[in-house]
Amino acid sequence: MTYCVGLYLNEGLVLLSDTRTNAGVDHISTFGKMHVEEVPGERMVALLSAGNLAISQAVWNRLVEGVWLEGQTHTLRDVPTMFRAAQLVGAAVRAVFDTDGPTLRAQGIAFDVALLLGGQIGGQPQRLFMIYAAGNFIEATEDTPFLQIGEHKYGKPILDRAVTPDTTLVDGVKLALISMDSTLRSNLTVGMPLDLLVYRANTQVVALRKRITEDEPYFRLVREGWSNSLREAYRAMPAPDWVPG
Amino acid sequence: MTYCVGLYLNEGLVLLSDTRTNAGVDHISTFGKMHVEEVPGERMVALLSAGNLAISQAVWNRLVEGVWLEGQTHTLRDVPTMFRAAQLVGAAVRAVFDTDGPTLRAQGIAFDVALLLGGQIGGQPQRLFMIYAAGNFIEATEDTPFLQIGEHKYGKPILDRAVTPDTTLVDGVKLALISMDSTLRSNLTVGMPLDLLVYRANTQVVALRKRITEDEPYFRLVREGWSNSLREAYRAMPAPDWVPG
Repeated sequence: MTYCVGLYLNEGLVLLSDTRTNAGVDHISTFGKMHVEEVPGERMVALLSAGNLAISQAVWNRLVEGVWLEGQTHTLRDVPTMFRAAQLVGAAVRAVFDTDGPTLRAQGIAFDVALLLGGQIGGQPQRLFMIYAAGNFIEATEDTPFLQIGEHKYGKPILDRAVTPDTTLVDGVKLALISMDSTLRSNLTVGMPLDLLVYRANTQVVALRKRITEDEPYFRLVREGWSNSLREAYRAMPAPDWVPG
Repeated sequence: MTYCVGLYLNEGLVLLSDTRTNAGVDHISTFGKMHVEEVPGERMVALLSAGNLAISQAVWNRLVEGVWLEGQTHTLRDVPTMFRAAQLVGAAVRAVFDTDGPTLRAQGIAFDVALLLGGQIGGQPQRLFMIYAAGNFIEATEDTPFLQIGEHKYGKPILDRAVTPDTTLVDGVKLALISMDSTLRSNLTVGMPLDLLVYRANTQVVALRKRITEDEPYFRLVREGWSNSLREAYRAMPAPDWVPG
């Protein structure tokens, strides 16, 4: 499993992924699940993946080598819009499905992959997409300014309650880390280190890309601080007057 | 789906269930999922269920009419220990599986049921069990003083961080309601009203049984208060100094 989250904020994008892959519980590895194509000042396009690692690596490799879309071979470095970028990722997913799908199906293995694609090209708006295993996709909007892939349930309540388009990038980083921490605590197949990318809107360049390890003081502060905050918050809530003392 | 949670605290037990059942998204109903057998001063035994409603209702009906266990028919009103009560519930689950399992399997329907059984009999310790669809079961201990069935992921982070055996019954009610609220917000198949039972250890009588509706002022306070608390808590956390301003 995996957990990746993308926040779509007025100030920019916050993208966070874990790095654990597992086949069963006794074959655990560390693989980066975040890939970036950047032409500083012109485009910044980041792709995060969840699901079967062989599939998601094949998708990325096809994107680097070029994928056929509407009569021409494209990469994420030359598509003219983010919508085309999402179509290209979808086309790469379908190409992998065409190649590997029949054998996977014959062996009873699900074609399991999901991707987050965020970025900005030229003077167009920044966008954030989630691409499904069928190669189709949805887009984050102001109504739902975050998207998640992988093991998304544990980390969703804090996002539901706190993320709005007005959330700042700094607060977005906090919230993404809190959401990830809730997931790490509850699911063994999501693991450290983490890969974080912060993108400031209309800069077309990565503002921050950081690998966060167990030793990162700020992440330790989030882990301990958040637990303490939750305990203090529930204790501070008034008690129901109908529970007999 | 369903969400039920049981807290196993030194002061007693807190049991909470939702009441929604659904077959698809356009056939939604309200059914109580909490049943209680009480002989005041002698025993208090409560059963909460998740999964296929036909299965869980059949289990409860069998328990009321009597289930064969070790050469005799028993109900939850006459088993001598909580361990026997858990065995009896398991035997009821297996009896339903023997009756309905083959046809369900032939029609491709999973035999999906899970139950929480909490209570105390005579001078023996209170206990809390989770019974699986195979009729076997596990028990809450001081190391993990809560058990969940149904849609458990959204509501687990707060329990992981805050519930200890020393948690008071009043705080346990708060935490169970917070956990339920997180689940209600994220999963349409979990719905109001809620059924709450509070049991104070060594009383062998229900301390409180309450149906909590949308109009219940305290639950509304929990919903709004908790969202506000979370927002205040993350805003109060220091910001990472490595996010460029």
